[in-house]
Amino acid sequence: MAFKIKGLCSAPYTPFRNDSERSVDLEAIQYHAAELKAQGVLYAFVCGTTGESLSLTVPERKAILEHWLKAGKDHGVTVISHVGCESINDTLELAKHAEAVGAAAVAVMPPTFSKPSSLDVIITLLETVSKAAPKTPLYWYHIPSRTGTTISPYSVLKKLHEIITESKGERLGNFRGLKFSDSNLHTYANCAHFADGHYNICLGMDEHLLGALAMCGVERTAAIGSTYNYQGKLYNKMIEAFAKGDKEEAMRLQRKTHASVDLLLTPDAFSCGVPGVNVGKALMELRMGGKNVGPPRYPGSAMPEEGKAKLKAAADAVGCFDDE
Amino acid sequence: MAFKIKGLCSAPYTPFRNDSERSVDLEAIQYHAAELKAQGVLYAFVCGTTGESLSLTVPERKAILEHWLKAGKDHGVTVISHVGCESINDTLELAKHAEAVGAAAVAVMPPTFSKPSSLDVIITLLETVSKAAPKTPLYWYHIPSRTGTTISPYSVLKKLHEIITESKGERLGNFRGLKFSDSNLHTYANCAHFADGHYNICLGMDEHLLGALAMCGVERTAAIGSTYNYQGKLYNKMIEAFAKGDKEEAMRLQRKTHASVDLLLTPDAFSCGVPGVNVGKALMELRMGGKNVGPPRYPGSAMPEEGKAKLKAAADAVGCFDDE
Amino acid sequence: MAFKIKGLCSAPYTPFRNDSERSVDLEAIQYHAAELKAQGVLYAFVCGTTGESLSLTVPERKAILEHWLKAGKDHGVTVISHVGCESINDTLELAKHAEAVGAAAVAVMPPTFSKPSSLDVIITLLETVSKAAPKTPLYWYHIPSRTGTTISPYSVLKKLHEIITESKGERLGNFRGLKFSDSNLHTYANCAHFADGHYNICLGMDEHLLGALAMCGVERTAAIGSTYNYQGKLYNKMIEAFAKGDKEEAMRLQRKTHASVDLLLTPDAFSCGVPGVNVGKALMELRMGGKNVGPPRYPGSAMPEEGKAKLKAAADAVGCFDDE
Amino acid sequence: MAFKIKGLCSAPYTPFRNDSERSVDLEAIQYHAAELKAQGVLYAFVCGTTGESLSLTVPERKAILEHWLKAGKDHGVTVISHVGCESINDTLELAKHAEAVGAAAVAVMPPTFSKPSSLDVIITLLETVSKAAPKTPLYWYHIPSRTGTTISPYSVLKKLHEIITESKGERLGNFRGLKFSDSNLHTYANCAHFADGHYNICLGMDEHLLGALAMCGVERTAAIGSTYNYQGKLYNKMIEAFAKGDKEEAMRLQRKTHASVDLLLTPDAFSCGVPGVNVGKALMELRMGGKNVGPPRYPGSAMPEEGKAKLKAAADAVGCFDDE
Repeated sequence: MAFKIKGLCSAPYTPFRNDSERSVDLEAIQYHAAELKAQGVLYAFVCGTTGESLSLTVPERKAILEHWLKAGKDHGVTVISHVGCESINDTLELAKHAEAVGAAAVAVMPPTFSKPSSLDVIITLLETVSKAAPKTPLYWYHIPSRTGTTISPYSVLKKLHEIITESKGERLGNFRGLKFSDSNLHTYANCAHFADGHYNICLGMDEHLLGALAMCGVERTAAIGSTYNYQGKLYNKMIEAFAKGDKEEAMRLQRKTHASVDLLLTPDAFSCGVPGVNVGKALMELRMGGKNVGPPRYPGSAMPEEGKAKLKAAADAVGCFDDE
Repeated sequence: MAFKIKGLCSAPYTPFRNDSERSVDLEAIQYHAAELKAQGVLYAFVCGTTGESLSLTVPERKAILEHWLKAGKDHGVTVISHVGCESINDTLELAKHAEAVGAAAVAVMPPTFSKPSSLDVIITLLETVSKAAPKTPLYWYHIPSRTGTTISPYSVLKKLHEIITESKGERLGNFRGLKFSDSNLHTYANCAHFADGHYNICLGMDEHLLGALAMCGVERTAAIGSTYNYQGKLYNKMIEAFAKGDKEEAMRLQRKTHASVDLLLTPDAFSCGVPGVNVGKALMELRMGGKNVGPPRYPGSAMPEEGKAKLKAAADAVGCFDDE
Repeated sequence: MAFKIKGLCSAPYTPFRNDSERSVDLEAIQYHAAELKAQGVLYAFVCGTTGESLSLTVPERKAILEHWLKAGKDHGVTVISHVGCESINDTLELAKHAEAVGAAAVAVMPPTFSKPSSLDVIITLLETVSKAAPKTPLYWYHIPSRTGTTISPYSVLKKLHEIITESKGERLGNFRGLKFSDSNLHTYANCAHFADGHYNICLGMDEHLLGALAMCGVERTAAIGSTYNYQGKLYNKMIEAFAKGDKEEAMRLQRKTHASVDLLLTPDAFSCGVPGVNVGKALMELRMGGKNVGPPRYPGSAMPEEGKAKLKAAADAVGCFDDE
Repeated sequence: MAFKIKGLCSAPYTPFRNDSERSVDLEAIQYHAAELKAQGVLYAFVCGTTGESLSLTVPERKAILEHWLKAGKDHGVTVISHVGCESINDTLELAKHAEAVGAAAVAVMPPTFSKPSSLDVIITLLETVSKAAPKTPLYWYHIPSRTGTTISPYSVLKKLHEIITESKGERLGNFRGLKFSDSNLHTYANCAHFADGHYNICLGMDEHLLGALAMCGVERTAAIGSTYNYQGKLYNKMIEAFAKGDKEEAMRLQRKTHASVDLLLTPDAFSCGVPGVNVGKALMELRMGGKNVGPPRYPGSAMPEEGKAKLKAAADAVGCFDDE
């Protein structure tokens, strides 16, 4: 039976120490994995955009994966490794390492400095990675807002399917699906229903999940995102409500997550400079009762205590951690 | 009771003759209105992007509105007029005209050549139009993929609400809502639920409608789009299925519309050069049994007979006009 | 002998009254033309971007052209009319009018809302305008920062030349050149030297003129811009210095204009909200001793007196009007 | 006396072997350095965009620098090292290494995946690198077309100057200038003339060099680029011609380089898929009589023999290697 991410998959934060190098706090990974288990989130996609992927060095990415694999084993969390780098040689090194240490799957995004100029370049990139880690399920990571690569993931999927089918799996047979970080749910649905739902298409925009469920159903919808780190229970309840046909409750829960996502987008980022991951890390720290997640490495700064206090008040006001 | 677009609103095509000037075929508007009625689509948003808004002259837009108001009366279709132009003086002239001839509402989009540089500029634009047609409900038309104006429609809505509330409706009291042509359903939901659903937020991306329904419910969701011209029945059935909790059927119907939207996006546009409206016009002609909708004015060319034959075959293959 | 813009051509401001409609002050055009003559600027490109082109209505553009033709006659200024509009029907109406009233040439830019999707669409647009005003020299107006149309003007030029040559001037025989509002001087030089310098390639970025002169020489370089309105003498001296080989003096003068261009780009625009034309209009008013140029129509606001005082001080500090 | 790049600086290609890993051919660096010397190009900016910077691993970049330092010593070429990476930790490692092995200067560009969100973030990045290699002259590498960071290099320069001045060189005292890879010669001139020409502003667009010379003079103009690898003699002659006031000859030579740059931009890239560096490497191989420069690593493919033959013919037709 082919590998498949089912339901929610976390995109974990990378915990840094607040020192001059923002060194990685590998021990803190245990707490993160335990929290996921507690939230009912049974997959982790490590060193993705939320994990500050490209701000990490290659040795750090290896060490983080190894610690996640151990923590995942301890807590029953399946670990997928993002191996995309700017240098394809680094990507291949990470892919080989991931296979060697037993990652459940790998995902690759394209370089952003030397963007792929055509669909063919993407296919070549994927096939090269496929050969470097031939026994490991492979995902294509589509995140145009960050990489600038807008080539349709549906065209990538169709082309891969054609190659796999024609070669009877000799070529790219370990390809499994997409991380789809875009708001176009029409394209998402085209991918999720393609080949009778054969591929595993994971939505990367948490705040649109209910829309994806409505268009693709529970079986064909999966999700990889950062807010499942601290709102996994809420999202799991939303999926349940949807599954049993309670539209009002599903809507209420998605709306509740919207209020939390709005916190991430607060322009001044609660005095830490850059919205997004920085604020998310502070929310996760609140969620875990102060256990370290750390400041962002770059380009943000640590959230000052005053900012944290404001964020806590705002998070409480929208019931961010109510779990219901 | 305040004006409100309920359910589906068509964005009609502008019928042109295939002459050297692509002159407007005003008589053909009657057929278009009759078809909407037959599809159960009871609102028309005329001279919007689908209607080739800015490719029309100011006198043409007035004539089209007048013919639509007459046709709308004959067929029970409520007519909203898009009055956005590059020159604000043209916009004001159209807004005054729309009020004088009895449009049910007006909508305005920002100039694309001289884009608004701030939220304040948008508010000023809207207030100027509000004063020019003070008795007519007013909508803000957000379509960033075309205008390049990305200022959040939610921030526009919140600012307008603040002004209306503080002035007790003295200022901008006729503002009613948004045409929201973007795929960000999180922002859509923020707008649709804002002020307890007071404003009329009309989704402009037909292929995402089921997602909007899931996040906002039937009461708070409205839709303005081009595909309701020829698939209004299908979408109305989808809304019904959603309303009565038939998830599978709603999903099936939205997926059916996706296959039709994919026709619009076919790269070679069935040999007429530019995807989108050009293909939509040919679909509408098929729907209406050959009644004129005409070629696009600019920059497309008329679809050749060979292209039409291919389009018909492709439309039949996906059951574009099956209505079920 | 073919028409040719030689040396500097002004892009005049459109004078508005400070009333609620920002009505056009047609009488003020006389002062503007007189000032150009005084500056030694013998061409005017009216209703271009500096003239707030698309913020004007079609009747206003006709009236402005007519007044400029009269003022040009009085003061020895040759008048070129920009006729580009969003609606090609408006463009054709303006082109016919321009020919009827005797404009020396017309120029056309592409629509920004419905951008040309290919080189062919641009050629079709130009050929349609060419036929509407067959006796009037025609220019293609390339300004990608505003229109979003990035199709290379060099490829447009080569294609037009091929058509003209093959048809022996039957097709597009009145095409004369480009308004080239881009900073790529390599492409500018490719165009200016193409066909042994046959076409009239007018640089639209005043602050790069000395670079164009260095790469193309005085004979093959022409320029259309807004700062020639108030610094024409300075630029004419720069061209003279370059022509006689005085590198140091040419550099000094171009650098002096740079300091003035920097005023236009001041972020707060001297309290009138939007940098660029708004500040330029205030500079022109200073240049003309207070004669009306007026506020911008949209989206800027009139510069407050305080802003004007600051601008005057800043302009004096860099010797904006020293003429040497 | 402060470090300064004078005249032309090469951005060398990274020689790869045509094996499956595109391994770096470190020995080939000797030939490249010898060729630069022969061309009269006495500086090399290694592992920049032309050197396929981010396609290299950190260990490769160290090895390449070390080999260049040795080759530079042998041939009298001064070596500057680009140390910009996506991970600031990698950047710091490369900066420390560069200082340890004796690079003449280092340059840093911003990450492209996690773009700097403000001027302050850039300053922090530069200051961190400044501290990591405090004895080595430091350059800011501005290349917005690739990094997407458009924050004005002039504002960066002014802010740095303010910090250096206020701290009397305690902070950022080793900052020396810019690699300015943009076509805006107005901004270039603002930077080159700033603080009486104190900083070393190196133009990164070879095809605009004559424009920069005209606006800034020989003393204040420097250049870092890829085409100096094979046309250094030609450009040196152009600079000489400009210096002695021979405008016609300078123009002729810049125009000759334009014809060669046009080869780089040929859409099909002579059958190797991606224009730019790929074609440049093939030109360099021709220039060096077949000595290895190698195919690009990513995303291009090796130029087929047929493509090389066509490129040779095209290069000969424009006299690419005539040196006069």
